[in-house]
Amino acid sequence: MITETGPAAPADPDAKTFVFVHGGAHGAWAFERVTSLLVKGGHHVATQDLPGHGLNARLPRSYVARPLDPQGFATEPSPLAHVTLRDYCDQVTGTIRRLAELMPHRRIVLLGHSMAGLILNQVGETVPELIDRLVYLSAWMIADGTSFGDYMAAPEFSTGLIPTVLLADPAVVGALRMDFRSADPDYRARVKAAFGADVDDRDWDAVTHLLTPDTPIGPLAERVTITPDRWGRIPRTYISCTDDRAVPPAAQRRFIAEADKHTPDNPTDVRELPTGHSPFVSQPERLAEVLLTLGRFTGGAAGHRRATTEYFVKEKP
Amino acid sequence: MITETGPAAPADPDAKTFVFVHGGAHGAWAFERVTSLLVKGGHHVATQDLPGHGLNARLPRSYVARPLDPQGFATEPSPLAHVTLRDYCDQVTGTIRRLAELMPHRRIVLLGHSMAGLILNQVGETVPELIDRLVYLSAWMIADGTSFGDYMAAPEFSTGLIPTVLLADPAVVGALRMDFRSADPDYRARVKAAFGADVDDRDWDAVTHLLTPDTPIGPLAERVTITPDRWGRIPRTYISCTDDRAVPPAAQRRFIAEADKHTPDNPTDVRELPTGHSPFVSQPERLAEVLLTLGRFTGGAAGHRRATTEYFVKEKP
Repeated sequence: MITETGPAAPADPDAKTFVFVHGGAHGAWAFERVTSLLVKGGHHVATQDLPGHGLNARLPRSYVARPLDPQGFATEPSPLAHVTLRDYCDQVTGTIRRLAELMPHRRIVLLGHSMAGLILNQVGETVPELIDRLVYLSAWMIADGTSFGDYMAAPEFSTGLIPTVLLADPAVVGALRMDFRSADPDYRARVKAAFGADVDDRDWDAVTHLLTPDTPIGPLAERVTITPDRWGRIPRTYISCTDDRAVPPAAQRRFIAEADKHTPDNPTDVRELPTGHSPFVSQPERLAEVLLTLGRFTGGAAGHRRATTEYFVKEKP
Repeated sequence: MITETGPAAPADPDAKTFVFVHGGAHGAWAFERVTSLLVKGGHHVATQDLPGHGLNARLPRSYVARPLDPQGFATEPSPLAHVTLRDYCDQVTGTIRRLAELMPHRRIVLLGHSMAGLILNQVGETVPELIDRLVYLSAWMIADGTSFGDYMAAPEFSTGLIPTVLLADPAVVGALRMDFRSADPDYRARVKAAFGADVDDRDWDAVTHLLTPDTPIGPLAERVTITPDRWGRIPRTYISCTDDRAVPPAAQRRFIAEADKHTPDNPTDVRELPTGHSPFVSQPERLAEVLLTLGRFTGGAAGHRRATTEYFVKEKP
């Protein structure tokens, strides 16, 4: 595994190209720790702010004014209400196409966190030949023909805490809207419970400073199409965050079961991290370690599996 | 030059390794646009949140409470008052050493923005043999034996706007303290004038959302040592932002003149960008373009200069 203090690994002929896609309200900044570990390990990492996020975030006026006017914040239309799933996917597909042209000998691992599961579905369906592995990190690996929204009322999400921290009706404002900068200790505690219960308190204050309030709902209402012959032929890993309260483990298991039913010959490689929804902040070393073992050996009692030239043997723990 | 839409360049045998160091109050997020352009061009880019910045930021309590209590904000000791220049430099030196061990065939270009000029001075002095070029981006390329603080009262800084937006006495709180989240239109306008006059207004709102309030003053009071035989032997470029109001062009010229006097055989390669203090947000394509021409040809009326094996011919415009 990669550490800052350990001896340098030899230059890795299997150096990988990772494309990381952050979740709603986040930006490329979310991956700073894990990206740094991987880059210092000689891997190539591309991570960008999605439209409407990070440097591309757009803020409601009512969010900037303080003290917050709860009524205004609950009703002001989101400046991001126009963002579509296509906007997200075009960016990611463009990055993958460019990297594949430039470095055709490198294998591309596409990782998405949380909402970015939708993007992995659609991008995987679009350019399966360019992606060597999809990695869903506590992500919405939703089933063919469904939308993010279809799952929100499902029993597997009944323990999910996202709905408890929304401060506006998404149908009214066009976004999942939260106030990560709230000074209200009760609200702040609920947000941390939902997204970062295991994150160091001071790190979490830094995270909430960077998170932006609006995640547009357009992409969450769109149905995705994933076929066994395109998306379904890409080896995929689900990194399950077992203490997640935003995407509960029951929901993660449902995603995995549905995907495996859709592609019985290509079952999901499931890994577990004992973290909440933000392992890139709370456990970046463990996350990097998992990422560097993907497609090589899955370990376990059955012992090593030999990698094949094209793809890799997978087993479920 | 690298664009997202242009044809892919062939894999570049001269692919570079860039190490980017952000300035005070910023994080690795600042370089997201230019990093993305370079990574998609096949270059290796390492950029990290410095101690006390980005995901490592620590916020005064008085900053989180709103409405802001100006008196409390003006007097609360900074949670970052303990940070030293050594803390910054150890991180950057560690990254460079690791990259150099791992990819000894790659050339490392170390870029620092603004305050990170101090870090480039010290890191350059520590590991000159591992750095192929230092790039000061409107950065504090201060002279041997001086500190950041020594320059603040200099005539070349008399038009600099940083002092006009500080909301606490640095000697009292231990930090340069600003309120980038302020809802006061007049204060916000002064901050934008200082750091991002040429940045799109909506991008700037996103930037101010990410900037953090405290830049610790410990590193700003430390004197740096740079010798002609170590720091002074590394080829260096100064990218001058000609509309900068945080580090005025007169101050940039002073830094360059002092450095050239210190190392007359290794004059600074000066490039210009017609931007304010944040070209990575306002003109990321032009910045990337400049970075990709460093050490190759400097162009100009005298025509191309042929690169040498070890270093590269430099000329001043």
